[in-house]
Amino acid sequence: MVEEGSHPVAKEDPVVVDDTFCEVFTAYFARVLITAATSRWAMESTLEAKGLGRSATLPPSEAFIEREARTTETPDGRPGWLLQIADRKRNELEYWLVARIRKGVLPFPTTAVFDAFPKENVEYSVKIEDTPIQLFGDGFEEAVEAFGRRVYRIPRMDGFFYVEEKFGIGKGVSGGNFLIMADSQGSALLAGEMALDAIKEIPFVTGRMASSGSKVGGHTYTEAVATTNDVYCPAISDKVKHSEVGRDVNCVYEIIVNGLDLEHVKSAMRVGIEKARCARGVKRITAGNYGGKLGSGRIDLRDLVGKQS
Amino acid sequence: MVEEGSHPVAKEDPVVVDDTFCEVFTAYFARVLITAATSRWAMESTLEAKGLGRSATLPPSEAFIEREARTTETPDGRPGWLLQIADRKRNELEYWLVARIRKGVLPFPTTAVFDAFPKENVEYSVKIEDTPIQLFGDGFEEAVEAFGRRVYRIPRMDGFFYVEEKFGIGKGVSGGNFLIMADSQGSALLAGEMALDAIKEIPFVTGRMASSGSKVGGHTYTEAVATTNDVYCPAISDKVKHSEVGRDVNCVYEIIVNGLDLEHVKSAMRVGIEKARCARGVKRITAGNYGGKLGSGRIDLRDLVGKQS
Amino acid sequence: MVEEGSHPVAKEDPVVVDDTFCEVFTAYFARVLITAATSRWAMESTLEAKGLGRSATLPPSEAFIEREARTTETPDGRPGWLLQIADRKRNELEYWLVARIRKGVLPFPTTAVFDAFPKENVEYSVKIEDTPIQLFGDGFEEAVEAFGRRVYRIPRMDGFFYVEEKFGIGKGVSGGNFLIMADSQGSALLAGEMALDAIKEIPFVTGRMASSGSKVGGHTYTEAVATTNDVYCPAISDKVKHSEVGRDVNCVYEIIVNGLDLEHVKSAMRVGIEKARCARGVKRITAGNYGGKLGSGRIDLRDLVGKQS
Amino acid sequence: MVEEGSHPVAKEDPVVVDDTFCEVFTAYFARVLITAATSRWAMESTLEAKGLGRSATLPPSEAFIEREARTTETPDGRPGWLLQIADRKRNELEYWLVARIRKGVLPFPTTAVFDAFPKENVEYSVKIEDTPIQLFGDGFEEAVEAFGRRVYRIPRMDGFFYVEEKFGIGKGVSGGNFLIMADSQGSALLAGEMALDAIKEIPFVTGRMASSGSKVGGHTYTEAVATTNDVYCPAISDKVKHSEVGRDVNCVYEIIVNGLDLEHVKSAMRVGIEKARCARGVKRITAGNYGGKLGSGRIDLRDLVGKQS
Repeated sequence: MVEEGSHPVAKEDPVVVDDTFCEVFTAYFARVLITAATSRWAMESTLEAKGLGRSATLPPSEAFIEREARTTETPDGRPGWLLQIADRKRNELEYWLVARIRKGVLPFPTTAVFDAFPKENVEYSVKIEDTPIQLFGDGFEEAVEAFGRRVYRIPRMDGFFYVEEKFGIGKGVSGGNFLIMADSQGSALLAGEMALDAIKEIPFVTGRMASSGSKVGGHTYTEAVATTNDVYCPAISDKVKHSEVGRDVNCVYEIIVNGLDLEHVKSAMRVGIEKARCARGVKRITAGNYGGKLGSGRIDLRDLVGKQS
Repeated sequence: MVEEGSHPVAKEDPVVVDDTFCEVFTAYFARVLITAATSRWAMESTLEAKGLGRSATLPPSEAFIEREARTTETPDGRPGWLLQIADRKRNELEYWLVARIRKGVLPFPTTAVFDAFPKENVEYSVKIEDTPIQLFGDGFEEAVEAFGRRVYRIPRMDGFFYVEEKFGIGKGVSGGNFLIMADSQGSALLAGEMALDAIKEIPFVTGRMASSGSKVGGHTYTEAVATTNDVYCPAISDKVKHSEVGRDVNCVYEIIVNGLDLEHVKSAMRVGIEKARCARGVKRITAGNYGGKLGSGRIDLRDLVGKQS
Repeated sequence: MVEEGSHPVAKEDPVVVDDTFCEVFTAYFARVLITAATSRWAMESTLEAKGLGRSATLPPSEAFIEREARTTETPDGRPGWLLQIADRKRNELEYWLVARIRKGVLPFPTTAVFDAFPKENVEYSVKIEDTPIQLFGDGFEEAVEAFGRRVYRIPRMDGFFYVEEKFGIGKGVSGGNFLIMADSQGSALLAGEMALDAIKEIPFVTGRMASSGSKVGGHTYTEAVATTNDVYCPAISDKVKHSEVGRDVNCVYEIIVNGLDLEHVKSAMRVGIEKARCARGVKRITAGNYGGKLGSGRIDLRDLVGKQS
Repeated sequence: MVEEGSHPVAKEDPVVVDDTFCEVFTAYFARVLITAATSRWAMESTLEAKGLGRSATLPPSEAFIEREARTTETPDGRPGWLLQIADRKRNELEYWLVARIRKGVLPFPTTAVFDAFPKENVEYSVKIEDTPIQLFGDGFEEAVEAFGRRVYRIPRMDGFFYVEEKFGIGKGVSGGNFLIMADSQGSALLAGEMALDAIKEIPFVTGRMASSGSKVGGHTYTEAVATTNDVYCPAISDKVKHSEVGRDVNCVYEIIVNGLDLEHVKSAMRVGIEKARCARGVKRITAGNYGGKLGSGRIDLRDLVGKQS
């Protein structure tokens, strides 16, 4: 007998996880650290900077909040938040890294922004020089050494805006995912939130929950980049050939994990699945894939959760 | 004697407001209502959908949260939040309205999205047909009447995503602003938050606080679209000709107000200024303008706050 | 066919509501308005002042947040939050009203506190004179007229603390409730949150969700004031005689509504039930009562939701 | 030259800290860990359980949130929050520990509660047996071993409520404090928030900001337990003999630190003072004391911040 993840009523068995896999993709990643006078202002800025970052099928690039940073981790000793930005196209990542800082950080009171990509994995750098960020200084900005970093010190109405001269980018892993199939929206939502709370504690990854699971291209709209993952839509299970939705499933959410390397993405998927499969009302855990043809790698779900009776 | 806005220690006089004006601009606006099963999920979605909307000088278009909507105001009787999206260029607004819904609403659990632009002011419509939103349905979507609206009902893994077929757009007012000049960051931040709390209660407007006040173009970087408003930067007051920063000012924040019409923008500016000018440490209230040459209208600050001794 | 409350997958029928009633109790109520320089500080204070207010079976008195107040509603024109405090014993209410202000409001930066009980229903007044609040002033406090009210102006390190001289109390309604019985924790939680979001929009009431439904006294521990409502506990349905928990129910939450009068409590229960009964996974809506022997009034659930097939 | 804590405009010198000390008091402490299915529900419960815990001069006992706990730290592997409860009187602590759990944890969906007091410092235990918490089970509860702890498993409508059988208590340190004296409310608030953000990262302590600094007893109201710290009230500096408030100070906040031992309290005060003294507008850092007569220990501010020019 296993205690339910949310442990009130004991549940006899966690749900069996499908013998399947998800495909993951290599993408370019940046990791930036936004600091401010208080954690609250750093968070406000980070919320703005991660905006419009939820889907890889349309610009702007992906962007997700990783976690709060301790003041002892930040170059300027102030509270901060870590943001990951990702794109399969390097030039898109470079463009949106600059735009996210320009629109999401520069306007927010007391903020500064530093590179937080792990040094050992840096492959390229994005220079702030000649971007709208550096140009914002209109010649009053200075390239200086501060807080142990090479930064631009750009005058702003509340003082100086400090931004690192270069931001490292390197390869990371995008698109790790699993599907929570449940008997109700409530069951699926609670299972999803439990999974995300667990994922939050794995370093170097970000997790999110999506209702808009998609397939590549479209059957009817063949020109579309991505369309609804019809075989996992309970609302149309009677209209879809080969629907994957059984009669006991009324709601499906996808948990998606990005991260700087495969090992941490796998760890995050493991703790997420372990949580979700123990929530009452969850009927099945599976994953979306493209027959293994598209991804640059794959994660077998059963490798994560071990043998099951 | 006037009680201080934050009223502990009585303050003899609120700060005198400069005899100046701000320029405002006509822009195209959309106003969308994002609903969800709970207010919390509607808010999460709205926070994502407003992302990267803080500056008019670089796409994506401007976007700001107006307020929470009562369930009695929403077509589907669920909790919701109102989002304003604005751009001086109509095609940019149309593009980003679609992108903001596609990336900020569709992926979020249980969400739906409706047009909330005042009917009497609609000049154009943005059709969802043939956009990545409608195409997401891959032929499984249906155009139906629901909740008293013409909507697409698009299958999604957690049920159906309802999105109105057309979103009204019309002209509104962008860029109303005033500057809070204070003796410290703390004084300026508190005054700014007090102003924004008051502005939140004026209908049809959105307010925000910015540290990155800018001027059009640049003196040194002449090709730049917008650069730091150097004359209001305390950190470089000794390097700037004609600095507007007196010795008693160490921090300046700009309060910016957008809205669907001039009257509400003016009301919002009035309540914001009344709050900010009573906060201790605020030394001066003024506004940025371009000599009246750029804007499509102007708001005189003294018209807002009445005669002053 | 009815759209599900959270409306993704259409659901054929909302759950039938039991033909039963809840008992309600007359209690003494106070209603206080906590203001501050910003809405955030007013909320922080209100969160502290409402603490330990969740159960009527043990002091401190009940206390719940009603809603945010508009600055146009507050005497001092500042942001505020409304707090209801209730107790069946008048002297307990009087004691804890003072303690909640002393410990929940006085220590918080920039706060003030005013009476917000509807004048027409006031039966008694609680005087601040000679309480630890007035005495805090140590003779430096003054009874003055400010903001159109008779207040004490008490010096505090950040200025003055304004507190109304008298707070009205009168009779209100406590203990309106219904039970959400669902197939999973997730289903019950989502239904409960949907109900609470709807209840929040009814004026003069407060709602909360409880897992600790109780019965008066105890079977085994006969001296206990209140013990677990065993017939509604799914985890022990096989050990309880006359369990009300069917095989399809694994989780039950109670929605409890207090309010200043019966009409608003009924309105709140109606909108709450309408939301909860449409959430998938909810199997039954019922209410706890004591055979009509204890309460000073009763609310029939079917009067609220109308005729059902 | 030192960068300002909120680092925009460089500030020449952090404020000199007074050559004084604060008195600290030995008090009994409990430390409880509240877990739930999600971090959000654990936090909601913890917010309720810490209510009315802001002042030591009136029951209920002191109570403050320490920090979020990682799921790897919690016995049941769920998200959680740590709460410290303190009282100089052991019987008061024991009473309110039970009441805080009964009213702040038991009613909240999916919660459980465990002892988190460091084992090596436990001096006494509070038993849950025969309290309203155990009695709530009405004989259906069981004393079992679960999650590696001896707990009561008490049936509740959403499953079982797990509560540890005994909670350790031991001696800790209460009342560490320093005063931030600033030119405006805004300056003092920002400095205080910066200090609290830094204090949050020191383990085993809790910090809060208070406007209601008090002295023991009263000059005019001699029977009062605690009255306003008149010598630090700017609003009455002209009425108070020996006022400590200079002409440049208009607002004072007290930062108060409790903790499980003196070393961590000192560390917390050090990082808090270092932040606050660098905020512009702060004019003086000092501390309240009673001439060293009342406390069981003292902390010299200059020991914390080192030599100053």
